[in-house]
Amino acid sequence: MTRFAFTLEFDGAPFFGLQRQAHGPSVQQAVEEAVARVTGETVTMHAAGRTDSGVHALAMRAHVDVDKAIAPFRLMEAVNAVLRPQPVAVIDCRIVAPDWHARFSCIGRAYQYRIANRRAPLTLDKGRAWHIARPLDADAMHQAAQALVGQHDFTTFRSAHCQAASPHKSLDRLDVRREGDDVLVEAAARSFLHHQIRSMVGTLALVGLGQWRVAQVADALAAKDRAALGLNAPPEGLYFVRARYPDDAA
Amino acid sequence: MTRFAFTLEFDGAPFFGLQRQAHGPSVQQAVEEAVARVTGETVTMHAAGRTDSGVHALAMRAHVDVDKAIAPFRLMEAVNAVLRPQPVAVIDCRIVAPDWHARFSCIGRAYQYRIANRRAPLTLDKGRAWHIARPLDADAMHQAAQALVGQHDFTTFRSAHCQAASPHKSLDRLDVRREGDDVLVEAAARSFLHHQIRSMVGTLALVGLGQWRVAQVADALAAKDRAALGLNAPPEGLYFVRARYPDDAA
Repeated sequence: MTRFAFTLEFDGAPFFGLQRQAHGPSVQQAVEEAVARVTGETVTMHAAGRTDSGVHALAMRAHVDVDKAIAPFRLMEAVNAVLRPQPVAVIDCRIVAPDWHARFSCIGRAYQYRIANRRAPLTLDKGRAWHIARPLDADAMHQAAQALVGQHDFTTFRSAHCQAASPHKSLDRLDVRREGDDVLVEAAARSFLHHQIRSMVGTLALVGLGQWRVAQVADALAAKDRAALGLNAPPEGLYFVRARYPDDAA
Repeated sequence: MTRFAFTLEFDGAPFFGLQRQAHGPSVQQAVEEAVARVTGETVTMHAAGRTDSGVHALAMRAHVDVDKAIAPFRLMEAVNAVLRPQPVAVIDCRIVAPDWHARFSCIGRAYQYRIANRRAPLTLDKGRAWHIARPLDADAMHQAAQALVGQHDFTTFRSAHCQAASPHKSLDRLDVRREGDDVLVEAAARSFLHHQIRSMVGTLALVGLGQWRVAQVADALAAKDRAALGLNAPPEGLYFVRARYPDDAA
């Protein structure tokens, strides 16, 4: 048995999220079926993150175990050939130690959230960003975001469907900056609660629009109450960008 | 009568090109119908370039004449509201002099061609770039491109359907550079022949792949024969990025 680590890129739009679902297509199902077609083996894919329906990935890490003797490059090429009609691709494939686990070995996850902040509706970037037509104050958003960095009870920013045992998480970084018409939010942590980033971004957007004062974000966090949440940002602006492992050469 | 200059952004995929066509949807028809819905007037749109089916625009310039008294911002907002289901948007709208003409006043056009040069199929960038899986030598492409800069008979790089009176054009700039997995070609001229950029890019790609020597591009140009063409690049990598006018404050 050989464990292969994949780096996956996908457009989340046609999928009901990364994880296998009974009621619709998932990235996991697409990749598992492609590996099965190539190897003749039934495999289970484990991934660093379980992104929601509509959320994209530039570099999701995942692994599968395969008995067939096959070189990583050959496996990547063959899996991509099978996947091709669907917008998911293996952009890197390598052999890892049998105890390396895409989810449990992962010590850091980073996401980017993209807001397209301009009057005109989106054309080429439709489905690739959250369109907000009224001007956002990115500096105020960044300032407000700093209240969320550190170790906190994130109950306010957690989906009612979150299955984590505890609402306590440590947020390493939450940076907001403007790049032309885009307002970009970068979030990094060991792990996140369900909907945490979209909940934080939606709330920061209210600050950016001037509807909330900067200090209200800290108040919402302190409330530890989902009812104190400002707004949940839509999935199409969210990208999984990086998973970190103790041995990043792995 | 007031002349309004639009800056248009569009995804070329669903359109049979910019110019009105009897057999399918066009950007011109979409915008003319939207302006008609807003103003109650039948208008004709004139654009700086006549992009082909599938070609995108980040900033196409165009104009329409309107009798109704309406502020540019209001016209832009109303036209975008009507256009919204389609991937075309007015990103700027201003009043210009009645003798300003989006096509005939234009003294320079710039395009960008994007090649995604990596093994894996495209996911998020599908339809936004030409995917070439084998490695390209961007430096060799840039070197070969310089033979095309200047005033030449571009018969080799001209579509059989080109309606221009003469195959002589002056190419101001044809730069090729690598940015990560992307190979970007920037082309600027007063005007281009039909398919000229895609013909030039397709031929340069053969140089990048090592199938053609750098000097063969100059030979193909000198042949003044469409049969000497290497390859026509597909439309989805091409973007109209800039139109220049004598008074660029217009």
